[in-house]
Amino acid sequence: MINSRFSTFSFLATATVDESSSLGVVSILLSLIVIYFAAKLGGELCVRIKLPPVLSELVGGVILGISALNLLVFPETSPIESSMLFQLLGRLSSINLESLTSVFQMQSQMITNLAELGVIILLFEIGLESDLKALLRVGSQATIVALVGVVVPFLLGTIGLVSFFSIPMIPAIFAGAALTATSIGITAKVLSELGQLQSTEGQIIIGAAVIDDILGILILAVVTSLAKTGNVELSHLVYLVVSAAIFLIGAVWFGRFLSPFFVSIVNQMQTRGQLLISALIIAFVLADIASLIHLEAILGAFAAGLILAETEKRGVLMEQIKPIADMLVPIFFVVIGARTDLSVLNPFVAENHQSLIIAAFLIVVAVLGKVVTGFSVLGESGVNRWAIGVGMIPRGEVGLVFAAVGSASGVLPQSLNAAIIVMVILTTFLAPPGLRAAFAQTGEISQASG
Amino acid sequence: MINSRFSTFSFLATATVDESSSLGVVSILLSLIVIYFAAKLGGELCVRIKLPPVLSELVGGVILGISALNLLVFPETSPIESSMLFQLLGRLSSINLESLTSVFQMQSQMITNLAELGVIILLFEIGLESDLKALLRVGSQATIVALVGVVVPFLLGTIGLVSFFSIPMIPAIFAGAALTATSIGITAKVLSELGQLQSTEGQIIIGAAVIDDILGILILAVVTSLAKTGNVELSHLVYLVVSAAIFLIGAVWFGRFLSPFFVSIVNQMQTRGQLLISALIIAFVLADIASLIHLEAILGAFAAGLILAETEKRGVLMEQIKPIADMLVPIFFVVIGARTDLSVLNPFVAENHQSLIIAAFLIVVAVLGKVVTGFSVLGESGVNRWAIGVGMIPRGEVGLVFAAVGSASGVLPQSLNAAIIVMVILTTFLAPPGLRAAFAQTGEISQASG
Repeated sequence: MINSRFSTFSFLATATVDESSSLGVVSILLSLIVIYFAAKLGGELCVRIKLPPVLSELVGGVILGISALNLLVFPETSPIESSMLFQLLGRLSSINLESLTSVFQMQSQMITNLAELGVIILLFEIGLESDLKALLRVGSQATIVALVGVVVPFLLGTIGLVSFFSIPMIPAIFAGAALTATSIGITAKVLSELGQLQSTEGQIIIGAAVIDDILGILILAVVTSLAKTGNVELSHLVYLVVSAAIFLIGAVWFGRFLSPFFVSIVNQMQTRGQLLISALIIAFVLADIASLIHLEAILGAFAAGLILAETEKRGVLMEQIKPIADMLVPIFFVVIGARTDLSVLNPFVAENHQSLIIAAFLIVVAVLGKVVTGFSVLGESGVNRWAIGVGMIPRGEVGLVFAAVGSASGVLPQSLNAAIIVMVILTTFLAPPGLRAAFAQTGEISQASG
Repeated sequence: MINSRFSTFSFLATATVDESSSLGVVSILLSLIVIYFAAKLGGELCVRIKLPPVLSELVGGVILGISALNLLVFPETSPIESSMLFQLLGRLSSINLESLTSVFQMQSQMITNLAELGVIILLFEIGLESDLKALLRVGSQATIVALVGVVVPFLLGTIGLVSFFSIPMIPAIFAGAALTATSIGITAKVLSELGQLQSTEGQIIIGAAVIDDILGILILAVVTSLAKTGNVELSHLVYLVVSAAIFLIGAVWFGRFLSPFFVSIVNQMQTRGQLLISALIIAFVLADIASLIHLEAILGAFAAGLILAETEKRGVLMEQIKPIADMLVPIFFVVIGARTDLSVLNPFVAENHQSLIIAAFLIVVAVLGKVVTGFSVLGESGVNRWAIGVGMIPRGEVGLVFAAVGSASGVLPQSLNAAIIVMVILTTFLAPPGLRAAFAQTGEISQASG
């Protein structure tokens, strides 16, 4: 009896039963060590040369991944023989190749899942940082800037790719959509470093970036679903826009209605982590609903953040979600970098020239399409239009999400995808010095910026 | 060219490419929702009836798992047909059974891995909360209490199981080892609820619980390695004790030596999450080293916590690790509960009587073996010896770790394992009312306890 039931009791079996299983935990922790090390080393270098650290996580990933060191590679693209990490583990343990390969697959799945959890937490945090009320204060200017900054790069990019480069419509739309993003995180950080967060320009940029975040996620949901069905039917597009809008507005409306109950329940709870766990339940429920109605899970997490941003718990929750984001979000960016095969951008290979030319085109559109937004601000005299336009340039994490989802859903050819990533990297690199120069023109940089 | 390279770019492929993959994320989030819901609902009920919430996570897991609702079950013990969660997902999506089964396996692996990460974070946090200096202040009394509280239950339990129940030596040693644990978390929380944390009794209990934590982890490492090799050779045992001791003392010694460098490096870092990520790197490196030298990964995480507890960063780090622990640790306890098949304890099944009798024996030893510790305190007049003894009774999370590792490593028969879990649950249930009664005897309960 005892023996027959024995096998039913195998908790932590993968961790302790045999060499292969304890190696699973070792390999997961080792991947995380390597990911964190690359993210922090790169991040610190970036900060010192006044670039946003998020870039460095991507670059750190590129260095770890298939383009360089082959420390962090994935079974879909690389056999176990090319993984330096598993070559090392194979030497440290006496395990056979077959078991090591199954550990490799398990570890890759876990790191991929953690990256997915990371982007869900990231969008939840972005939602939590977004503020519909502050947006209403900067009012119409921010809305115009956001809309112009979405429409112009999208049209220029999509039409340009179809006309000049003969790219099919769906990948062209995807690339155009990736051009619409604005990174609120990077923009806000650069503004604060320049002491311009509270200026009129700063307010408009942040307001527009918030709207852009929402628009960007709607566009992402639309183009992703479009990519899945390969369909540009207007009715389908309308259905998707409407269902995304209904979901987001409905979630926020219902959320505002239900959030007093949420706050009062959390206030009555007495166990450790009651606020955080309750908030995560809401984020995961909305992410699951979004995913089940064929939107993206991250859209639901973002909506949950927006809802909870309206409650009195926002400040505490932002404090508590921060360490979790610090732990999980770098995994997402490093994994994107690690999976990016930059060899398509090698200028010495003739067949790469096409993607390099596309990248150059995308960068021009990305900069022009956002700089014009500053000149769309009406009825505001003495405002620094250049600063607003330049402030909208960085694509940052939102642009990377587009690239990642686009390539994953199978619509973006490798060359176009690599071109988008180069565009994201360069626009994000350009923004901090550009913004500094734009404000310096009118002598507006405060003393705080040194 | 584009097409041939296309497959190399599949980031987030598992999340977005097809129904089966996006269902993977949905199923992981759904499992987490269910886990958090059970943990919090149970936790709040426990707090209301003045029991420690950690218990409730275990009980919540039992209700979710194989013993009751079958919402959270694992492929090793349950076919997909018996999983209520996947029955639901199967209906919500149009996926076929084969793909659903592979999602089931992936989801189970991810939840198991997250539980493993949870226990690593838990032990890191316990290490961070431990304080070697506070221990030195309460001095010899705490050491005597800890040693008596380890030796007496271990010997009584092991010898009793071998003599009265004809249990083989290795499982008997494992069960004896599980009897030695003291839950510093539960003990400290109950003391603080009674307003007794700063009393002499409170200091001694906490000091002894700290030593017990360290001893418990050493014992765990010893008995686990013992279980793996099935060997009770004295030389092997000495080797293990020595290597565990060298590792722990060496890590702490090296850590104290290197921690000023750690603090100065972290102070020079400027990116977000620099302290947390640096600390996690240390925790994961030590966990990996411990695991590679055939100790437990959790021992390394605990050592990392002890090291960083000695630095000026301790307070900030504890703040930052808290939300991460809040997010990951409940997964560990709920999963233990979900995997626990309580049907072996059904008193109406004749073949279960043996394990129920064993459970009763273990509970008697668990209580007696700790209550005597109070009377081992020498040269301290007017001290409440009952309170000290009762304060050492709750086994809590450390006892559960023993049970989990024991069953996973394959030495504990199901009946003995279930008996240990019942012992852990009951000792943890007994402590809060017991401690309150012990202090009430001498009218020492402060007004703070209400």
